[in-house]
Amino acid sequence: MSDDASLMDGERLWRRLVALAEIGATPAGGVNRQALSDGEIEAWRLLLQWAEGTGLAASTDPAGNLFLTLRGADPTAAPILVGSHIDSQPTGGRFDGAAGVLAALEAVTSMAERGRQPPRDVIVVAWMNEEGSRFAPGMMGSEAFVGVRPLEWIRTVKDADGITVGEALDRLHGSFPDLPRRQLGFVPACFLELHIEQGTLLEAAACPVGVVTGIQGKKTFRVEITGREGHAGTVPMPERRDAVLVFSQLASALYAAMAALDPSIMFTIGRVQVSPNAPSVIASNVTFSIDLRHPDNALLDEAGRRIAAICGEYTEPCAVSLTPLVDAPSNLFDADLQERIAHAASALGVRTMPILSAAGHDARHLAKICPTAMIFIPCRDGISHAENEWVEPDDLVAGARVLARVVDELAFAQT
Amino acid sequence: MSDDASLMDGERLWRRLVALAEIGATPAGGVNRQALSDGEIEAWRLLLQWAEGTGLAASTDPAGNLFLTLRGADPTAAPILVGSHIDSQPTGGRFDGAAGVLAALEAVTSMAERGRQPPRDVIVVAWMNEEGSRFAPGMMGSEAFVGVRPLEWIRTVKDADGITVGEALDRLHGSFPDLPRRQLGFVPACFLELHIEQGTLLEAAACPVGVVTGIQGKKTFRVEITGREGHAGTVPMPERRDAVLVFSQLASALYAAMAALDPSIMFTIGRVQVSPNAPSVIASNVTFSIDLRHPDNALLDEAGRRIAAICGEYTEPCAVSLTPLVDAPSNLFDADLQERIAHAASALGVRTMPILSAAGHDARHLAKICPTAMIFIPCRDGISHAENEWVEPDDLVAGARVLARVVDELAFAQT
Repeated sequence: MSDDASLMDGERLWRRLVALAEIGATPAGGVNRQALSDGEIEAWRLLLQWAEGTGLAASTDPAGNLFLTLRGADPTAAPILVGSHIDSQPTGGRFDGAAGVLAALEAVTSMAERGRQPPRDVIVVAWMNEEGSRFAPGMMGSEAFVGVRPLEWIRTVKDADGITVGEALDRLHGSFPDLPRRQLGFVPACFLELHIEQGTLLEAAACPVGVVTGIQGKKTFRVEITGREGHAGTVPMPERRDAVLVFSQLASALYAAMAALDPSIMFTIGRVQVSPNAPSVIASNVTFSIDLRHPDNALLDEAGRRIAAICGEYTEPCAVSLTPLVDAPSNLFDADLQERIAHAASALGVRTMPILSAAGHDARHLAKICPTAMIFIPCRDGISHAENEWVEPDDLVAGARVLARVVDELAFAQT
Repeated sequence: MSDDASLMDGERLWRRLVALAEIGATPAGGVNRQALSDGEIEAWRLLLQWAEGTGLAASTDPAGNLFLTLRGADPTAAPILVGSHIDSQPTGGRFDGAAGVLAALEAVTSMAERGRQPPRDVIVVAWMNEEGSRFAPGMMGSEAFVGVRPLEWIRTVKDADGITVGEALDRLHGSFPDLPRRQLGFVPACFLELHIEQGTLLEAAACPVGVVTGIQGKKTFRVEITGREGHAGTVPMPERRDAVLVFSQLASALYAAMAALDPSIMFTIGRVQVSPNAPSVIASNVTFSIDLRHPDNALLDEAGRRIAAICGEYTEPCAVSLTPLVDAPSNLFDADLQERIAHAASALGVRTMPILSAAGHDARHLAKICPTAMIFIPCRDGISHAENEWVEPDDLVAGARVLARVVDELAFAQT
């Protein structure tokens, strides 16, 4: 076990975080660096430059995941995998995803700088499209990696401009012609991810590190309302098939039904697209998203059934169709890894508390193929997916120190 | 008075209508030729080519209105003005606006071809941005022409891409450097506009021509809901300030209140913009349009007051602000011109009926400065502002014959 002071460089970590945040920076201090965008390609260049400086071996896979590998003595030993994502929401913050990738890179960079080769590969990963804002649903890279969703299907998903994931992936790979390509998927020894909490529990407890026990379940849906276009000044009200009228009634009913079922159910309609969306034209179509989350799988299933029942009640004056997209039950992380994180923090004098993740993360999918755990750090006022997202440097460094220690232990552990 | 057969050429009118519809044609058979777009510039080129072929003098004004003038003997006499618009909704039809401009052009072209100079100018006009879909509100060209809205203000209005009317106007004028510019505004002897009904009354009565008695009143508003952005999986429901939730409740309440006040009130929410509009982000902002119409000004005012009162009730969890845009009371057209239209039709053996316009038209504004009237022709199933808008050629020709006869009478009338 190395001395803690040498396990990572907190100042370099913060400096790199600030540098990465300049790519896709928004005037309000946030980041717009959506999946497979020019910004993400530019962010890859920066990561590759840093990796090259320390002799890490870079590669990508057909799903557009980026791997930065510190070579171990035994290339056949299952590698330690650690990372997060660098794509952001359209008006996202500097820390969501980026903190986890850079903390992982810092741990591995410091390990490389110490010059002692670990027995197994240690790999930093940046997963493709965690956020799901440009291309829905999110977590495409980790889903393809573990095999829960076929890459062929993922490649057909389109963004608002009609560009497919396949086209955007080919463009990404075409931007790095010399970057080695590896096959899709392998079985790691374990996966670790550091991430901001995106809630207020750690902040309220003044606790710099959360040991994540699991992730609450999530379902997402797309709802399409189909009516008939017409002139706002001439079509009599009883003859209208106004998709916005039906949307307002249906959405009100859904919000009310979810609140009545259980106020702790997270229910969000975040995206609404109206067509043709002109002031003097009765709308013929409204398409909207539903995001539904809860730790209790039975309650989540019941909420999903009620949403389907309510949508099914609407037939006139517009047709309503409901398409399920994501159905991810809540999951628990590896108990041994949780204990290891708590012990490492304790040895470093860093306070921890157990915490349930309300948000989804790529770790949800990795947990299906290997022991997996997450470290949370607090973010100010629990705000994320917003330009004023903020993490105190001391909290980032505390979390990254714990991560570096656990990665070091696991990399040099006897198997 | 000329013989009717020589007053216009119905086949040429239809041919030109089909040719104009090719500019901005959509795959579904409609037209997307929004105000000041490349399509509208191309449509101007076609109109200018036709005008040149008959020796009409073309000009434009600072508001981007297009004038095609048959010169009269006395340049100081107040001119006859006749026309409509050639811009369309984003998924508009071939006839809305275009039918009126081309029927006017046909009347004046035939008059020029007969070779007898009228005592006064006869001017075909295509007004700028009647539809108000790209730049809201609509009828900008006629409003600037009659002076009810300053061109300086109009020039500051932006489209969804942030392009101002001013920039788009300068681009339009820059595309026609040799086209003479006239000052904004003059007082015509009268204004006539042929237009599709955009309703079902003429069709139901199997009547090819409606003599329009007036236009129902119209108010439009912009409503902005301001909440707070947040993560769909982490922010507890009681702490949310979800702008989509408030939109669904507010819109439902507005639809219900208008129906309760009077089911004949036309109430439309046609445009809804959500921000940031991502599935896993609680929306911080919703901006939507209200379009409100009724022939009874007192009822319309009462409806406007109720909308303001309902919006005023919403303060938590989101702020709601209401901005009035258009406030156009219902108006009546010139009785002498209505009688003249009915007589001309009768002389041609064309059946007419009086009809109130449910839709707004540029004629609403011209009526403030000169005797004004409108001729309606039926459209199939009352459908307009839609790609399957359709007019029977016989009905278009019947309406255009009546228009040509009235224009001829007025042009050669003794003053």
